[in-house]
Amino acid sequence: MKQFNIALIPGDGIGSEVVAEGVKVLKAIEKADSNIAFSFTEFPWGCEYYLKYGKMMDEDGIDQLKNYDAIYLGAVGYPGVPDHISLRDLLIKIRKEFDQYVNLRPVTLLNPTLTPLKSKAERDIDFLVIRENSEGEYAGAGDWLYKGKPEEVVLQTGVFSRKGTERIIRYAYEEARKLKKTLTSVSKGNALNYSMVFWDEVFEEIGKEYPDVKTYSYLVDAASLYFVAEPERFEIVVTSNLFGDILTDIGAAITGGMGLATGANINPEKEFPSMFEPVHGSAPDIAGEGKANPIAAIWSVSQMLDFFGEEAWGKAILSTIRELLMDTKALTPDMGGKGSTKDVGDIFIELLFA
Amino acid sequence: MKQFNIALIPGDGIGSEVVAEGVKVLKAIEKADSNIAFSFTEFPWGCEYYLKYGKMMDEDGIDQLKNYDAIYLGAVGYPGVPDHISLRDLLIKIRKEFDQYVNLRPVTLLNPTLTPLKSKAERDIDFLVIRENSEGEYAGAGDWLYKGKPEEVVLQTGVFSRKGTERIIRYAYEEARKLKKTLTSVSKGNALNYSMVFWDEVFEEIGKEYPDVKTYSYLVDAASLYFVAEPERFEIVVTSNLFGDILTDIGAAITGGMGLATGANINPEKEFPSMFEPVHGSAPDIAGEGKANPIAAIWSVSQMLDFFGEEAWGKAILSTIRELLMDTKALTPDMGGKGSTKDVGDIFIELLFA
Ligand SMILES: CC(C)[C@H](C(=O)O)[C@@H](O)C(=O)O
Ligand SMILES: CC(C)[C@H](C(=O)O)[C@@H](O)C(=O)O
Repeated sequence: MKQFNIALIPGDGIGSEVVAEGVKVLKAIEKADSNIAFSFTEFPWGCEYYLKYGKMMDEDGIDQLKNYDAIYLGAVGYPGVPDHISLRDLLIKIRKEFDQYVNLRPVTLLNPTLTPLKSKAERDIDFLVIRENSEGEYAGAGDWLYKGKPEEVVLQTGVFSRKGTERIIRYAYEEARKLKKTLTSVSKGNALNYSMVFWDEVFEEIGKEYPDVKTYSYLVDAASLYFVAEPERFEIVVTSNLFGDILTDIGAAITGGMGLATGANINPEKEFPSMFEPVHGSAPDIAGEGKANPIAAIWSVSQMLDFFGEEAWGKAILSTIRELLMDTKALTPDMGGKGSTKDVGDIFIELLFA
Repeated sequence: MKQFNIALIPGDGIGSEVVAEGVKVLKAIEKADSNIAFSFTEFPWGCEYYLKYGKMMDEDGIDQLKNYDAIYLGAVGYPGVPDHISLRDLLIKIRKEFDQYVNLRPVTLLNPTLTPLKSKAERDIDFLVIRENSEGEYAGAGDWLYKGKPEEVVLQTGVFSRKGTERIIRYAYEEARKLKKTLTSVSKGNALNYSMVFWDEVFEEIGKEYPDVKTYSYLVDAASLYFVAEPERFEIVVTSNLFGDILTDIGAAITGGMGLATGANINPEKEFPSMFEPVHGSAPDIAGEGKANPIAAIWSVSQMLDFFGEEAWGKAILSTIRELLMDTKALTPDMGGKGSTKDVGDIFIELLFA
């Protein structure tokens, strides 16, 4: 019997509503599979916590989380707390402190009606973005000089280490080799004359160890265009933290929106817990109304189970999502349906075991 | 009689082919309008020049250009010269040295068949991106430490000055006021904790002087999604150098591709020449074959004439492009036609005076 201990951080807004559905799915699986058991421990961190206690998580929060097998996070951010505090002190902090340097974001069209693109079928949009998740543009380094004066100048420094750049690129090559897929690096060497020139060098260098992997190298602007114009070009994409952020939202746009976008923040060495989260935000405008779309959060559970080595369940969840998407009426309003968050979770579980 | 002196930098690859068509259009206008005269001076700068002389332009190149009314540029970049040299030493250099701090990039659907998006009409995709064009992420500041060692680390610093940030944001507010349009700022304050927090502050601050302008503020990832999912949200967008680069390529994607994307690099004070260019690259794969699409380059001429105060001609060109696009057969192969670069230029001129 395998026991997985999961830390829940529902966070803000619709976070708790969608996480509840993911947990429901995990509990249903536990009930059906006598070989798996889950424990759940909830942490009340987020913007409400911040407004009460002046901090997004406990001082020893990272310590409190470090022995869990996984973190399942809902959403972070709420009006009243500046975003650069709420996000950098919770979500981004966990990614960094736990060296979750791989962010896996599938761009997979689950149903042809979901794409806003003309004449694209499921096979045309089916790739994986591997986003650097620990450093780069998100290093948080910078300075703010002469505040309020005419000569005021603000610096934001991207930090690209050999270690950080090599390990994400190597991870991507390994995946490409394992899955026999092409690998596309996305960078911007023609304008970012230090960081991205370095990135390109490392991509080429490490490529020498993988002569079996067919590679492409795109500028981020061109890649953004092709995500829309010719998504069929891509199989596995590896890119920096910021570019990954932007590209995966384009990925979400072409596959049906943020209600379906998931991300796994992985520490491949399993030295620290990995974190699974829907990519969407806390959606203050609909929070508490029970109409948040839980599908991304459920897809996150699929990624979590894959990560646990329970790929059969991971796959089952994904194919059940495909099934679920065939019946628009059953879905939440953002998908054109009339279902509530809970309804969607219930129907999902029914279908999973049907 | 108004005399405009234009510096031509055809540059690399298809650059000279498309610039030739733009010049043809200008000459035809000169012939038809006895109030306007153009002079053209060609500069042979680019990658070929670099391979011969070890530099992308003459040492005193900026000096040579500084008295022209406008620069008309084709494309820069060619295999054999690293992109960060070819672009930073010519295109980006001119933008900076001539303080062309405003980059105007229309995202306008000229014909509903051109968009890859389902059910979007011309009125749904019709906005202007105002991109900061002189500093920010493109400052070129950085460092490369411990080269080749395990502790190697590469820094890329975005530089956001009060002056640089204020002037682009103010320019955008002025445009929004003049045109009675909404203004959307795109930034990324939740992750880029110095530069983009500053950007957001300046956007809000200056907004106080424009209570008549309705504003929105989007994260760059969300904006990228909405460019695809709901482009009708946007009227005028103001954003940083890098984000503008990425967003306008998404803009190109949703309006028919790079063959139709134009950009005006403006020095609003007219202290220095402004520069007009198709946004596409040098396309080495088709260079010399006479099948490059000249429409973006012709649209650049329209932007140039607007800038010269010859808006009637600017408008006439744009509506002629609309007309031209109605007959696919007449267009170049990238648009599904059989025309050559020259054919398209010829037909364009016929239509312009029809
Ligand atoms: C919320 C924000 C800090 C985060 C990011 O930029 O990484 C989000 O957009 C994401 O993609 O996970
Ligand atoms: C060629 C490149 C340096 C340039 C840029 O990044 O600005 C181009 O992509 C553009 O958009 O004009």
